[in-house]
Amino acid sequence: MNRYEQIQELAYKANMELPKLNLVIFTFGNVSASDKYLGAFAIKPSGVPYNELSPDKMVIVDFDGKVIKGKLRPSSDTKTHAVLYKECEDIGGICHTHSIYATAWAQAQRDIPIYGTTHADHKTVDIPCAPPMHDDMIQGDYEYQTGYQILNCLKEKNLSYKEVEMILVGNHAPFTWGKTAEKAVYNSAVLESIAQMALLTEQINPKAARLKDSLIKKHFERKHGPDSYYGQ
Amino acid sequence: MNRYEQIQELAYKANMELPKLNLVIFTFGNVSASDKYLGAFAIKPSGVPYNELSPDKMVIVDFDGKVIKGKLRPSSDTKTHAVLYKECEDIGGICHTHSIYATAWAQAQRDIPIYGTTHADHKTVDIPCAPPMHDDMIQGDYEYQTGYQILNCLKEKNLSYKEVEMILVGNHAPFTWGKTAEKAVYNSAVLESIAQMALLTEQINPKAARLKDSLIKKHFERKHGPDSYYGQ
Amino acid sequence: MNRYEQIQELAYKANMELPKLNLVIFTFGNVSASDKYLGAFAIKPSGVPYNELSPDKMVIVDFDGKVIKGKLRPSSDTKTHAVLYKECEDIGGICHTHSIYATAWAQAQRDIPIYGTTHADHKTVDIPCAPPMHDDMIQGDYEYQTGYQILNCLKEKNLSYKEVEMILVGNHAPFTWGKTAEKAVYNSAVLESIAQMALLTEQINPKAARLKDSLIKKHFERKHGPDSYYGQ
Amino acid sequence: MNRYEQIQELAYKANMELPKLNLVIFTFGNVSASDKYLGAFAIKPSGVPYNELSPDKMVIVDFDGKVIKGKLRPSSDTKTHAVLYKECEDIGGICHTHSIYATAWAQAQRDIPIYGTTHADHKTVDIPCAPPMHDDMIQGDYEYQTGYQILNCLKEKNLSYKEVEMILVGNHAPFTWGKTAEKAVYNSAVLESIAQMALLTEQINPKAARLKDSLIKKHFERKHGPDSYYGQ
Repeated sequence: MNRYEQIQELAYKANMELPKLNLVIFTFGNVSASDKYLGAFAIKPSGVPYNELSPDKMVIVDFDGKVIKGKLRPSSDTKTHAVLYKECEDIGGICHTHSIYATAWAQAQRDIPIYGTTHADHKTVDIPCAPPMHDDMIQGDYEYQTGYQILNCLKEKNLSYKEVEMILVGNHAPFTWGKTAEKAVYNSAVLESIAQMALLTEQINPKAARLKDSLIKKHFERKHGPDSYYGQ
Repeated sequence: MNRYEQIQELAYKANMELPKLNLVIFTFGNVSASDKYLGAFAIKPSGVPYNELSPDKMVIVDFDGKVIKGKLRPSSDTKTHAVLYKECEDIGGICHTHSIYATAWAQAQRDIPIYGTTHADHKTVDIPCAPPMHDDMIQGDYEYQTGYQILNCLKEKNLSYKEVEMILVGNHAPFTWGKTAEKAVYNSAVLESIAQMALLTEQINPKAARLKDSLIKKHFERKHGPDSYYGQ
Repeated sequence: MNRYEQIQELAYKANMELPKLNLVIFTFGNVSASDKYLGAFAIKPSGVPYNELSPDKMVIVDFDGKVIKGKLRPSSDTKTHAVLYKECEDIGGICHTHSIYATAWAQAQRDIPIYGTTHADHKTVDIPCAPPMHDDMIQGDYEYQTGYQILNCLKEKNLSYKEVEMILVGNHAPFTWGKTAEKAVYNSAVLESIAQMALLTEQINPKAARLKDSLIKKHFERKHGPDSYYGQ
Repeated sequence: MNRYEQIQELAYKANMELPKLNLVIFTFGNVSASDKYLGAFAIKPSGVPYNELSPDKMVIVDFDGKVIKGKLRPSSDTKTHAVLYKECEDIGGICHTHSIYATAWAQAQRDIPIYGTTHADHKTVDIPCAPPMHDDMIQGDYEYQTGYQILNCLKEKNLSYKEVEMILVGNHAPFTWGKTAEKAVYNSAVLESIAQMALLTEQINPKAARLKDSLIKKHFERKHGPDSYYGQ
């Protein structure tokens, strides 16, 4: 298996997880897997149902969004993926879904407050919601600009893509990423749980308070800090 | 396979998708597939459980609602289907379910506001909710009048059935349609997602705003405009 | 198969539907099937998981609640079933679950308002919620009294058990019945859908109005009236 | 099978129930099974997906939280389990999940009010929510302190761990226990149902009242009292 086939295989497997995790219906959602050495990523072809996918149908695209290999048209969100890979060199996989609860928060244009340790196990901050773009950006190269809208939002909030591997794009839906495509999908599923729990928390107690800093720190560090003791 | 058998096959397959997509329980819901050349459609028999269906049990009905072929009684909603086929020559399939979230919006008698791109990917307007009928229409030929209630609602809101392939009938439930029966079922599943997301959006942010026009236009056109770049 | 074995078979099959329809977890819920001629019914044994049930484990009980056949102890709700069979001669099956949404309405001690045609297809009135019993009834023969609490509630609201085949027992959970055990289970699943839709309707529109009388009449009669045209 | 292997087997089986009961995704959640005679318990290894578990991968730990047998690192929550086993001699199994509804109540920092008989069948009191710990406890031996936070909460509310086999840890998630690991898992699933029903009850009727004492007593005693008549 050459390096192109390797990222096709990774992207294929990661895409196939989306329906199993109830994150998509029909052809919604797309995952890509990248190879820094190749300067390219493999991504789901546009509008093809999951049960018709195969590794060789994954389209190979460079970090400027240009198709390198593949007969099918890549996902319509391809340029957003390209921008993120180009600007964030440690990202190995990106996932985009319209999962129900995370998308509802995006539509509501609210950051998801950190209410508990399920959230803190993964992120130390509220899940950011990038504002909808200005009209000229929308009318221009929309998907390309979506990538920069994500990066600008992180920058404004002084967040690193390495720490916050998930974002809501206002009025649209979530994007998540990680060192691998598999991790990006994992982050999408975790985000969906966090999004549902946060809404329920506010319904149970409209005055629920954000998690206090000591607990945020503790839970994040036990999973991700230098002295982490989670996992093998 | 003759043309009658072809639409029976299409209607059968489309009906069988409804329980898989969690859009119906028991015998709720019905899908039909039409053939303009025959001036007829095939529709689910009334009250027969999905696991007892077969293509030959689909009842053939003309566009006036008269049964042409089949030993079983057609769906009690047959005349609503007939009216829509008669008045809208480009419809090839119609789907009616009592799916939970879309039906709740119908019972609440509210249009579903367009809150995000999941909605805009499919429709550029709020999903219309037709008002309940006047009592004389209800006491008359009820299912026939339901068809006209749908058409009158589209007309009053200045909407074409070609652009808006889904509607809520107030106090009742959704009807969706499309060029094929398969597309009509697809629209029912998309509507159910949109309906759930819209309610959650309002719960997360009671002041959530409708999607702005530039985003509505962009998302609809990338899927359906002359320069669309979604799908293969 | 003798008549005892026949109702054991019917009760067994009906009980096995409960986990498939997501109406119960673990050993929650019970269904019985009766035979007027025998003056007896078969009911689930108490506390036995569904996957360990078999027809011969169904306990045979008379209409006074006395065990006639069977080595296992019958459901703890047996006397409630017995009272209903004794007082309502046309009931052939009874179902009791703690399904999530119907139970929540029972806990909220509210009748479920008739908001749409899904409800009207089955019942012409709000689903009644019987008030919790007086303390002396609770401390006495509790399950026996539960049966009379149900009957008294129907009487006070001037409802016949033949028309309203479902009730909520306040602070407890739903009971449903029908001509057969299968129909009783069907009614429990329909009730769960109606209960969920009604809550969502109120969340979407807190001022949602009850269905108007003409629509209630039309939908009920097309399924159940003398000129009904639903089913085969 | 020796005694160590026996608790490994029990812990393995109980852990495997968690994804089937929809109480966890990925590697969230952990169950342990203890043996008083050994003064040890078997617990899920940290961060290992459920479909990669096997009985021999369960880690054996003593009641001070020290690993006795096993090559893998035990669950990061191990010390909480150890404290509970050490202080409560009749506990044979402990379960910790981040199930959606119970976790939302924990995040909302509210006890779950007893609204119905589903709750009373299992507990006679509101499900307690322990307050988040003081910062010095969090910064110290966090998981160890979590165990004492649970015990202190029960003590302050004058509750026995034998009667109340479930608790919410504020801002975190539920812990449940029982005479066996299987029972601890059962309690987690029951708690999740109770948590969902309680939220829905408040949404249906914001003024819903707690269950009255006579009903609480009756339902608990028919399942657990000296004259209980539930089960075989």
